[in-house]
Amino acid sequence: MAAFQAPSMISSSSSAFLAHNSFSLSSSKLCLPRSRPCVLKCASAPTTETAHKTNVSRNTNMAKLQAGYLFPEIARRRSAHMLKYPDAKVISLGIGDTTEPIPDVITSAMSKRSHALSTIDGYSGYGAEQGEKQLRAAITSTYYGDLGIEETDVFVSDGAKCDISRLQMLFGSNVKMAVQDPSYPAYVDSSVIIGQTGQYQKEIEKFGDIEYMRCTPENGFFPDLSTTSKADIIFFCSPNNPTGAVASRDQLTQLVQFARDNGSIIVYDSAYGMYISDDSPRSIFEIPGAKEVAIEVSSFSKYAGFTGVRLGWTVVPKELLFSDGFPVAKDFNRIVCTCFNGASNIAQAGGLACLSPDGLKAMNDVINFYKENTALIVDTFTMLGFNVYGGKNAPYVWVHFPGRSSWDVFAEILEKTHLVTTPGSGFGPGGEGFIRVSSFGHRENVLEACRRLKQFYK
Amino acid sequence: MAAFQAPSMISSSSSAFLAHNSFSLSSSKLCLPRSRPCVLKCASAPTTETAHKTNVSRNTNMAKLQAGYLFPEIARRRSAHMLKYPDAKVISLGIGDTTEPIPDVITSAMSKRSHALSTIDGYSGYGAEQGEKQLRAAITSTYYGDLGIEETDVFVSDGAKCDISRLQMLFGSNVKMAVQDPSYPAYVDSSVIIGQTGQYQKEIEKFGDIEYMRCTPENGFFPDLSTTSKADIIFFCSPNNPTGAVASRDQLTQLVQFARDNGSIIVYDSAYGMYISDDSPRSIFEIPGAKEVAIEVSSFSKYAGFTGVRLGWTVVPKELLFSDGFPVAKDFNRIVCTCFNGASNIAQAGGLACLSPDGLKAMNDVINFYKENTALIVDTFTMLGFNVYGGKNAPYVWVHFPGRSSWDVFAEILEKTHLVTTPGSGFGPGGEGFIRVSSFGHRENVLEACRRLKQFYK
Repeated sequence: MAAFQAPSMISSSSSAFLAHNSFSLSSSKLCLPRSRPCVLKCASAPTTETAHKTNVSRNTNMAKLQAGYLFPEIARRRSAHMLKYPDAKVISLGIGDTTEPIPDVITSAMSKRSHALSTIDGYSGYGAEQGEKQLRAAITSTYYGDLGIEETDVFVSDGAKCDISRLQMLFGSNVKMAVQDPSYPAYVDSSVIIGQTGQYQKEIEKFGDIEYMRCTPENGFFPDLSTTSKADIIFFCSPNNPTGAVASRDQLTQLVQFARDNGSIIVYDSAYGMYISDDSPRSIFEIPGAKEVAIEVSSFSKYAGFTGVRLGWTVVPKELLFSDGFPVAKDFNRIVCTCFNGASNIAQAGGLACLSPDGLKAMNDVINFYKENTALIVDTFTMLGFNVYGGKNAPYVWVHFPGRSSWDVFAEILEKTHLVTTPGSGFGPGGEGFIRVSSFGHRENVLEACRRLKQFYK
Repeated sequence: MAAFQAPSMISSSSSAFLAHNSFSLSSSKLCLPRSRPCVLKCASAPTTETAHKTNVSRNTNMAKLQAGYLFPEIARRRSAHMLKYPDAKVISLGIGDTTEPIPDVITSAMSKRSHALSTIDGYSGYGAEQGEKQLRAAITSTYYGDLGIEETDVFVSDGAKCDISRLQMLFGSNVKMAVQDPSYPAYVDSSVIIGQTGQYQKEIEKFGDIEYMRCTPENGFFPDLSTTSKADIIFFCSPNNPTGAVASRDQLTQLVQFARDNGSIIVYDSAYGMYISDDSPRSIFEIPGAKEVAIEVSSFSKYAGFTGVRLGWTVVPKELLFSDGFPVAKDFNRIVCTCFNGASNIAQAGGLACLSPDGLKAMNDVINFYKENTALIVDTFTMLGFNVYGGKNAPYVWVHFPGRSSWDVFAEILEKTHLVTTPGSGFGPGGEGFIRVSSFGHRENVLEACRRLKQFYK
């Protein structure tokens, strides 16, 4: 059990709320008490040993979770670094947060919708939980035009991360999931929360009852399916976060066949699909037979800088059936109606503008800008002699530091160059020895970051 | 298991996706097949008996849910009515959807924030999952100024409904909940989804392992706590949706003491707090000792017309502890960080404007407008000789039709007056014999609705 922090520290930043068991440096600095009695003393009021406790047991699944969610932990480390070096210009190539302004064609639409909400004719209250019809139609025609996906298969969300949790609620605790290792931490953490997993096994850094599909340079970051155990739900992200690898058509065909053979459901995360430069599939539904075995989650976050605006979507084809023949989409619809109330109507107006001809061009311009950043970062690490992966079809560069701890490399780079990266091991044990470098950043910052890296690692 | 609908019907409206087992009228009309083979035939493709089914079992908790979520079902009924009477002017006093434009002081702030996102200085990506610091501070000072709630106890959400599900994920499946009967259906349905309940018991219209706290005219819509079984989590809404009743300070003091005695956690829904005209508490935290036993969920939806904009908040005091002393807020923070990514930054700019002096005045003006509507509706039903409850401190009027089925009354009013209401039994068995009439509507519509009711029930 992680120790409770003093309230004054909790208020200092969002991420300071989260303790990370393994960092004694930060915990001593932040005055984190570790013993049970002190937990009570640190609560603001009442401060006595007789503070009322409820009789409600803590959810044992929550107690299984390890440390803080990765990205708040990085934010906390960054804040601590800035306290230590108040004059340093810290540059973040860390959490994958977009930095470039949203094109005006998109924000104008959101601004217009905002103003319209002050008029009798333009006001709208509750929208359809599944999203506005026009936006669902535009997503369908833009991304799934000739793939047999229908408008009613598309559910608009407030982001892929949020829908991943809603999908876990849909599946419940009696399924077994498989996940690429390394992978985006929300897959595993949401699986733990919903009760699909066993305890965390510290020695192997894995949760019980999850199938970790190792993705390494040796297998081209595509798992060896011949040695992969059967799972009910297979989370698969391509272009991959964090490795930046993209799965080829042939590989995805194997994956779909694997799912068909095992009766599995693939949850395919295509949040970076528009970063693909070659002819790799941008959607799992490009693979024949995928509609009967796959769900796809996606997002405007990394296409249009909507990380803060919050808009995404999930495709659940009506052909996807549980073992008893019941359509998965029908249960997902129920989840969306019961646990969600639709994405913000203003964000949806922005999404619709994204998919206009001008919006698509503007999104592509921003994506190309980030891809130029990626090339600069890839060139830098390559020049320095590192083995560098990803970067071609994704905004992430995956750099190998063989034999070293990711957190040590993260700390070294932060300490010596004031650059924030992401430790690969934060994405699972398969990420150990790597760091993820994000290419979201203003050009001058990326250039400066490359200069500092060249200086330090020369 | 509910039958699957033909895809063509699914696309016709968001709510048409949901079948309602008990409505043979609508199901015959909408061509809902009921037998298993037909389920497969109705899927769009492939249409053969050999369609691929996954081996993933449907979540048994999802299968426990009854019929559709209430409000989409009402929308479906309304759509069917409009097909039948294409020339009728249907007026909705049904789903509690706000109708009046959002005051300009609020939409201007959202518009400004939208535009700012197109500038280097004004752009922001991921915000704190817990919400922007300024907004958390404004919510704290506006609604909890002298109640000892701190800014860090406040978590900004995309609406109360969404946070109710996140709270259920936090609690997990091993708790027992209590709920007012009648109550807002999301409490019970989210409890079923997360696995806290037994099967639905058709004869008593209740789920197993939920404590239904009957609220009737006889007990002043406050449950008899002396006969209420102990529960871990007590959902309590005041001013109440649907009955419109508000709990007095004395009643809430009893409730807090009941929770303290039993070690329970109260989830207090104060989404209608600003509608209170008398000196009833607007927050559970006005009751001494509540911080150690209560969570409060609230929303801008009914204050500022944000039903489509999506913004709310939840207060989890750091004094609230699980039985092992672990702070509930710490687990909730983890849920928010893992399963959510913060409310839309544009909506948050609107929320901040709501809490400015001009915004507060504007919100109060809109609330007073709806309260005038409420008075018109109360007067109408009272004049017609009905027993009418609620309405004074809430935008809902709860009208008694003793001995009649709520759905029959709903259908009668819709058929004869083209008015959409909400059947009381949709909120639980305790709502049988009542209808809920919402006062959200343009004035001329409310006046017209009152005229039609007077005409029909004279």
